[in-house]
Amino acid sequence: MASWGERLEGVRGVLLDISGVLYDGSEDGGVPIPGSVEAVARLKRSQLKVRFCTNDSQKSRGDLVGLLRRHGFDISEGEVTAPAPAASLILKERGLRPHLLIHDGVRSEFDQIDTSNPNCVVIADAGESFSYQNMNKAFRVLMELESPVLISLGKGRYYKETSGLMLDVGAYMKALEYACGIEAEVVGKPSPEYFQSALKEMGVEAHEAIMIGDDIVGDVGGAQRCGMRALQVRTGKFRPSDERHPDVKADGYVDNLAEAVDLLLQHTDK
Amino acid sequence: MASWGERLEGVRGVLLDISGVLYDGSEDGGVPIPGSVEAVARLKRSQLKVRFCTNDSQKSRGDLVGLLRRHGFDISEGEVTAPAPAASLILKERGLRPHLLIHDGVRSEFDQIDTSNPNCVVIADAGESFSYQNMNKAFRVLMELESPVLISLGKGRYYKETSGLMLDVGAYMKALEYACGIEAEVVGKPSPEYFQSALKEMGVEAHEAIMIGDDIVGDVGGAQRCGMRALQVRTGKFRPSDERHPDVKADGYVDNLAEAVDLLLQHTDK
Repeated sequence: MASWGERLEGVRGVLLDISGVLYDGSEDGGVPIPGSVEAVARLKRSQLKVRFCTNDSQKSRGDLVGLLRRHGFDISEGEVTAPAPAASLILKERGLRPHLLIHDGVRSEFDQIDTSNPNCVVIADAGESFSYQNMNKAFRVLMELESPVLISLGKGRYYKETSGLMLDVGAYMKALEYACGIEAEVVGKPSPEYFQSALKEMGVEAHEAIMIGDDIVGDVGGAQRCGMRALQVRTGKFRPSDERHPDVKADGYVDNLAEAVDLLLQHTDK
Repeated sequence: MASWGERLEGVRGVLLDISGVLYDGSEDGGVPIPGSVEAVARLKRSQLKVRFCTNDSQKSRGDLVGLLRRHGFDISEGEVTAPAPAASLILKERGLRPHLLIHDGVRSEFDQIDTSNPNCVVIADAGESFSYQNMNKAFRVLMELESPVLISLGKGRYYKETSGLMLDVGAYMKALEYACGIEAEVVGKPSPEYFQSALKEMGVEAHEAIMIGDDIVGDVGGAQRCGMRALQVRTGKFRPSDERHPDVKADGYVDNLAEAVDLLLQHTDK
């Protein structure tokens, strides 16, 4: 493998995943990953541009940032790309009126959206709200549309909480896709449009950017398909088998965000 | 198309789907399809062998037969192939101890099955029991197994009740398949093993048998792939577009079971 100097040459912007990289989530707020608070602070003092790019669809961007700030992170709402505000923008642009199958924690992101007489369905990580009745309601809305539009905020299979593994929105997206015979539009990683919107906000071209995440497929593979470089951290949902993934090879594997930032500050911006 | 005489030549046994062919279901018991009670009676007085082959996984076989008898149908438990007793047999044969994600109405079919320390998951049309909590429980059981086994009682997308369309077990099967990265084993139509077990019970070879159903894919396509012939009735979930289905062509389309039985009695057993 090439030296770190060659691998990180020309990097001007850094995209950071949040859950599993900055902190480990749980129902009562989670805990920061050791070294990550300081790593973010150092990165922001450097000449590198920084943006946070998450698939969290259970919390509003404001709530997520508030939580991270309480953990000591230097982060503001304007620096975060999150699927709910991205979807909200798409709905406005396309004149779509969604039926929302979402968690109450993220409902405020859709306050400005007309949900009367729905002509599409938006599905997010709804948690306990994924009842049979709610799923059936969303299904019936789709089946009544001539050209059903299903927008899914991410397509994760599952995530880990302190209580154990939790089914993520992707599973329920697949259920509706199969029942209706349709394909969902994904707003979130690994959708190229989603990465590109984060790059645009950061003002950096794909070949000048690097993604740092714990998900070998959604973060690393997704970013690389957009022409970015990507590092995988050995925190969060990382598993040793990820380093032998059949399809995706990261540009580097690091123990945690602190090590990634060490390398970036050492080898870029010379 | 060949004459009915040619198409029905050599038929000795008839497999009948139940929902949408004999009766239209609903929460309060449903209603028989006009002419079907008499059609079944005439068929059973003929020299043709008859068997009922259903994918209903919300009711025990006893409850289903009781309901049909109250509607006036001449039917007994021993004449019905249903997915729950078929799955129960498979579990016993393979020494599998299931975690059951099923409707309470069908639980009695698994009374004799050891469900301690589960080494597989059985999923059926659980209706309201498809809560996030129950889905997550089934998901965690699968993820803890070295070689996860998921058995699905049918893989229907949806069915129709008087109150509207209802998501069927297939949607939830797809959710678990995606989340776990596995493929379910389907017990029910259109699984070849399932049709073959019905043929064996009837004592008729596939080429001597004909399936009568309302589902162009599950009933007609499934039976044809087993070497049987198949008629689609224009009742139940039949839709006019079924007669132009891109992949499946029935051996004949009839208005209802009564017309199918007229044709069978006229053209077979000469």
